[in-house]
Amino acid sequence: MPDIQPPLLDRLSALLGPRGILTDPADLAPYLSDWRMLYTGRTPCVLRPGSTAELAEVVKLCAAAGQPLVPQGGNTSMVGGAIPDEGGRQMVVSLARLNRVRDIDPLDMTMTAEAGVVVKAAQDVAMEAGCLFPLSFGGEGTATIGGVLSTNAGGNTTVRYGNARELMLGLEVVLPDGQVWNGLRRLRKDNTGYALRHLFVGAEGTLGFITAAVLRLFARPRENEVALCAVRDEEAALSLFRRFRDRDETAVRAFEYMSGTGVGFYARFIEGGQVPLAEPGDHVVLVDLASSRPDAGLRALMEAVLEEALEAGEVLDAAIGESEAQRAAIWRIREEHPEAQKREGASVKNDVSVPVSKTPELIRRASEACRRLIPGIRPVPFGHMGDGNIHMNLQQPPGMDPAAFLARSHDIMETVNAVVRDLGGSFSAEHGIGRLKTDMMEDWRGGAELEVMQRIKAAIDPRGLMNPGKVLP
Amino acid sequence: MPDIQPPLLDRLSALLGPRGILTDPADLAPYLSDWRMLYTGRTPCVLRPGSTAELAEVVKLCAAAGQPLVPQGGNTSMVGGAIPDEGGRQMVVSLARLNRVRDIDPLDMTMTAEAGVVVKAAQDVAMEAGCLFPLSFGGEGTATIGGVLSTNAGGNTTVRYGNARELMLGLEVVLPDGQVWNGLRRLRKDNTGYALRHLFVGAEGTLGFITAAVLRLFARPRENEVALCAVRDEEAALSLFRRFRDRDETAVRAFEYMSGTGVGFYARFIEGGQVPLAEPGDHVVLVDLASSRPDAGLRALMEAVLEEALEAGEVLDAAIGESEAQRAAIWRIREEHPEAQKREGASVKNDVSVPVSKTPELIRRASEACRRLIPGIRPVPFGHMGDGNIHMNLQQPPGMDPAAFLARSHDIMETVNAVVRDLGGSFSAEHGIGRLKTDMMEDWRGGAELEVMQRIKAAIDPRGLMNPGKVLP
Repeated sequence: MPDIQPPLLDRLSALLGPRGILTDPADLAPYLSDWRMLYTGRTPCVLRPGSTAELAEVVKLCAAAGQPLVPQGGNTSMVGGAIPDEGGRQMVVSLARLNRVRDIDPLDMTMTAEAGVVVKAAQDVAMEAGCLFPLSFGGEGTATIGGVLSTNAGGNTTVRYGNARELMLGLEVVLPDGQVWNGLRRLRKDNTGYALRHLFVGAEGTLGFITAAVLRLFARPRENEVALCAVRDEEAALSLFRRFRDRDETAVRAFEYMSGTGVGFYARFIEGGQVPLAEPGDHVVLVDLASSRPDAGLRALMEAVLEEALEAGEVLDAAIGESEAQRAAIWRIREEHPEAQKREGASVKNDVSVPVSKTPELIRRASEACRRLIPGIRPVPFGHMGDGNIHMNLQQPPGMDPAAFLARSHDIMETVNAVVRDLGGSFSAEHGIGRLKTDMMEDWRGGAELEVMQRIKAAIDPRGLMNPGKVLP
Repeated sequence: MPDIQPPLLDRLSALLGPRGILTDPADLAPYLSDWRMLYTGRTPCVLRPGSTAELAEVVKLCAAAGQPLVPQGGNTSMVGGAIPDEGGRQMVVSLARLNRVRDIDPLDMTMTAEAGVVVKAAQDVAMEAGCLFPLSFGGEGTATIGGVLSTNAGGNTTVRYGNARELMLGLEVVLPDGQVWNGLRRLRKDNTGYALRHLFVGAEGTLGFITAAVLRLFARPRENEVALCAVRDEEAALSLFRRFRDRDETAVRAFEYMSGTGVGFYARFIEGGQVPLAEPGDHVVLVDLASSRPDAGLRALMEAVLEEALEAGEVLDAAIGESEAQRAAIWRIREEHPEAQKREGASVKNDVSVPVSKTPELIRRASEACRRLIPGIRPVPFGHMGDGNIHMNLQQPPGMDPAAFLARSHDIMETVNAVVRDLGGSFSAEHGIGRLKTDMMEDWRGGAELEVMQRIKAAIDPRGLMNPGKVLP
């Protein structure tokens, strides 16, 4: 099947040893399907180098042989970004064995972690050193540092700490020709030529392999308050965000919108799924406040703002977590949204963003447009209202054939995206392009922007061997 | 003198009109010297387009004629970044007439400003809308938005708000072939291909013209406390920073180190230059705390931390500003350092950075090394200890001939940079490369990194017409 010259495979085997190369079809399977089951690819082998130097040798050998490579971290891409195509020629390169935290410095507030370090592990190492690595999202127990940087992951805390990009000070990269660029600088200021590190972040492995990164750490919160609020409508949700932000610009660590429909799915399908509100209503918000000050007074701030918003008729009901367990239980409502949606049947996911001020209009207009498109469809918008990123998901009408619904995926995405475009938004907020959205690049980023991207790709990876078929059309 | 074909000048004149093109030598002079007087260039004309569309036409005409262009904003570069060379062929393009704030949105906390808007004007517009544009540095009354983005300016508040790069959400750029890229997106999350905006920021005009930008705004501080502290030594200064940061991660808006020597120059040379400390000693620190909360309790925090540090023997004396006027007077000591140094005679400037934890070692070792190099030399280190960026400046020995001292500039820079390199630092923290430091790029960024930069330059500006001779060697 694979059109690979034996000499290359032989040389890779000799270089990597039995631990470093998988060829048995049973071993390959987990590397060939994305977790959303959108794609299943084929590959002659999975390469698992044990160090940056070993990866550099792999890339040199493959470059000489014209061998295309697909970098893979935790394989949690939502857009098929880490899966080889069906041709059977692309080799998967797993970064899983590059999993050391090379150093951590609580004075500089930095950590140097290799690409294969799992995000949760990075969080834990930071916590042990008395610091916070704030990147946080559903896949954090599986996703890796290399993956979150290659895709510029966002998640729940972007409103306070920024995207993965903003948590990165320096990179180590294996370039498409096998050269190693050591840019692991631990500097807050360094204006010495083009910002290459920002080019590799978000490039989804199409320009080279991120093998390690210097990450920024923050102070561990000493106060934390989490509330779940039933709000009047989408505008009231946004108004509540403003009320908190106006009181304390830095206190809001997360501000998550959920639909009553989604919260209902949670209560129905998730074991032990309790919602601490008598009447969640149609619109629910999760507010998470945190501060490094032990005397920040966040409980008083939370109560004062909710009181104000209750009086204004914007908040209808609210529950504040009284313990770590209660706070975690509130967060679980948000985190189990994807699982609850899956149990209810088929859904179409849209990871979109608009200016924060436009989020109410996005939710309202996209929901209405989809209801016109498919009567009975159930909008389940949820996500990061505080940074303008709404997962504008649509659940099939009750009783409809899931396959028939999914056959309308393209129409649904187009319907949502028409609203997004009208509001000055983006068709991919935090999940990236991968393979799923390459077809949309021409329409959304065509002209000068796409032309410059293609020139950069040709300049850095002239033979197109790095993650072919991803990002660029 | 100029080797310019008449047809191009004629066409540019016809396009731009008399307001848009200067050719009288008297009019050209202000555009041809940098304010440090390091370089004086020559040019056939200064082009002053009045809009992005007009600039795009200029660039198209010049590209067709192979005409090199030098973008210029407020001409406050510290490294000769906006000055044409001596050849007389490069045309200066001033962005000064692109000076509109196109929109401001206090809900989204964004402002869209054109390249020629002066930084101070952007601050003022934000303030009128009830917001803060936090970028702040000595040249803010002259420097422009296009300039600070093209050079990724830093300044005093990086420790809290980040560099210019981190204050930017979107860009509009005229590319070297005259195409306009409209990337003025107001989104906190947008993962749709390569991060071009980060490539143009810090490229110093060598990849195209930044013509407008979406800037991030922040909440106006409702509390502000500023203190001037005499500290025991460099390590005590850093320890004081940690004490503040550990109490409240977000309160420190600026943390500036100054030498007793520099503070002495201020007292001696600056009119009305008062220092509110009985004995400033050899090491002085300025702390600026700010919060958007009206009840942040920053005065109590300031007093508590200074008390602790006094007891620990790290702080020897401290004065807290009791009014806006007193706070401004303390800041003036820091801001007038360059002027005070100029009055005292010749000095050599080094804009370097190291990991924050290494700043005491940098100051100590670089000072000692320079004293060994030139007996009697007076180190005047000052700057942004909170982000690791020290202006490691050296003042001539008293009575030495300034010219003889400046003849040693290269040796002094090399001496400082040897220490910087040993500490994992950068030879250009916030001023950039310009023309002054291109010779150092090979040594510091050579190999894979410089090769990738050169490939990008060739891909985007294949004929090398954009700000030739800057950034890349």
